[in-house]
Amino acid sequence: MSDLPKSILITEEGPREGFQVEQALIPTARKVELIDALSRTGLKRIQIVSFVDPKRVPGMADAEAVVAGIQVKPGVEYTGLWLNQKGLERARATGRLTLEGKISLYPSEKFLMRNNNRTLEQQTEYVHRVLASYQEHGIPVERGSISNAFGCNFQGDIPLAKVVAMVGEIYDIAARHGLNIKELSLADTMAWATPLQVKRTIGAIREKYPEIRINLHLHDTRGMGIANAYAGLEMGVDMFDSSVAGLGGCPFAGHKGASGNVCTEDLVFMCEEMGVRTGVDLDALIESARLAEDVVGHPLPGSVMKGGSLAKLRRSASQAQG
Amino acid sequence: MSDLPKSILITEEGPREGFQVEQALIPTARKVELIDALSRTGLKRIQIVSFVDPKRVPGMADAEAVVAGIQVKPGVEYTGLWLNQKGLERARATGRLTLEGKISLYPSEKFLMRNNNRTLEQQTEYVHRVLASYQEHGIPVERGSISNAFGCNFQGDIPLAKVVAMVGEIYDIAARHGLNIKELSLADTMAWATPLQVKRTIGAIREKYPEIRINLHLHDTRGMGIANAYAGLEMGVDMFDSSVAGLGGCPFAGHKGASGNVCTEDLVFMCEEMGVRTGVDLDALIESARLAEDVVGHPLPGSVMKGGSLAKLRRSASQAQG
Repeated sequence: MSDLPKSILITEEGPREGFQVEQALIPTARKVELIDALSRTGLKRIQIVSFVDPKRVPGMADAEAVVAGIQVKPGVEYTGLWLNQKGLERARATGRLTLEGKISLYPSEKFLMRNNNRTLEQQTEYVHRVLASYQEHGIPVERGSISNAFGCNFQGDIPLAKVVAMVGEIYDIAARHGLNIKELSLADTMAWATPLQVKRTIGAIREKYPEIRINLHLHDTRGMGIANAYAGLEMGVDMFDSSVAGLGGCPFAGHKGASGNVCTEDLVFMCEEMGVRTGVDLDALIESARLAEDVVGHPLPGSVMKGGSLAKLRRSASQAQG
Repeated sequence: MSDLPKSILITEEGPREGFQVEQALIPTARKVELIDALSRTGLKRIQIVSFVDPKRVPGMADAEAVVAGIQVKPGVEYTGLWLNQKGLERARATGRLTLEGKISLYPSEKFLMRNNNRTLEQQTEYVHRVLASYQEHGIPVERGSISNAFGCNFQGDIPLAKVVAMVGEIYDIAARHGLNIKELSLADTMAWATPLQVKRTIGAIREKYPEIRINLHLHDTRGMGIANAYAGLEMGVDMFDSSVAGLGGCPFAGHKGASGNVCTEDLVFMCEEMGVRTGVDLDALIESARLAEDVVGHPLPGSVMKGGSLAKLRRSASQAQG
């Protein structure tokens, strides 16, 4: 029961996840302020922007200005997201981002049409095209990614066999480009997963592909995010995406109400309390979460930012006894 | 990994947990309206009031009127909470509640002083006195209960050995009254628990007391509630307390911010999706959760009430494909 990983690597996605869904446009300087605060918490990877059509995602129209504005902290990787060649070109042009390619497949064609405006076939064609670009520009590709791996609001349940087969497709595509895939990111984009499903999915993938390192991208729309992360930890998963204060949600998932990514400080709290190192200063991260609420101008769903860490309570309890 | 119980028994505590902490006084008729709605969801046990000092907990001053007002649904047990003999007398006088005694111990004397105004020694004396009352009035006693079993804001960490020893004390006290304890409720009153700690605590108790049936009462102040419930399920726990919409929190825990009990509809969602039966109609429960928000007049923390169940999404997805 303590077969948890010794440490995990968190990719903080709050700025990208959050700013793309906010109704009110947030000043670039305030986005930069939050990213710089996050850089000082011990987080090692921060996804700060997406390079997408500003007509569809107005909150990301200032992506270049955000990237130009941040104080790059040594030891922190700053990444961006793109869904097409044009986005990739914009990301490259900044000259300040860690560029990593991935092979992204989607078991739900309905979501793919809404999110990326492509059919399954068009997505495979796109992947081949963009892989050629990555190779041309020397951008490493070591990751496969499956969105809606646990279910889709439009497509319904996603059969486990389909997900496992899709991992095979990723390897096949990689092989055709001479690439070596080391990581697989599974996204619960619409929050369909339960802890049992997370375990079964990872178990089935590991049975066939025992050497692949799994990353979980978990949305918390139905309150399962932390439980699903725990299930992942029990399966040895040591890479997670998360969002400070629970910022975010996918603008094309068709959800009403709260729908952010699993909350970074809640994940850090759980891990550190269980002896799984994150490298993150929880109290500093809680301060960033409060800053995130101030920046977006409304309450955010994170719990530990409201309940507080246990460090001070432990200190005051032991002083009272001492 | 699918060693989960086939079904669980939920004690809904939203009315009691919720109405005792609300700042604004809620009309009795609206409390009754929520309890009656909950009675129609398939829930089998509902804790509806506490009989406590109305000067300390003004939201429970109308406890008798609430009990008198509900439509008792056959097959549903309605329970109340009391912390002293006077409260017990009030509960008995209603004539409408399922009365069950328990042996309640507290590893944190500091919380005990704030919540019950007693020292550890006074609590043990009280337990003996109240057990005599239970026996005098034919009230069954089959449960032990340990509050703050996972940590305390005032006392700090609670050593696992102390919790296990306290189970022994409960058995000893029971034996002196000729009682047979079958259930043990562990409360994470201040939300200190992690899933790993839940597993270790239950494992250590089961090692010494393999036959005891464990109930979990989990607060969600730090966002761990559902993950802790999942850890309990994995240990075979099949009894949980929870609150519709995440209503509640303990008025003497000293928390700011959101701090309710683990949310009933989120728990039901997780269980049913994993094949663990709850007997509860999730969509009816989500309606009750929305009613709860209307009754208290402010947003409540539940997630599935906002994200929605998957039943309709599955139907529309399969129709679109059919």
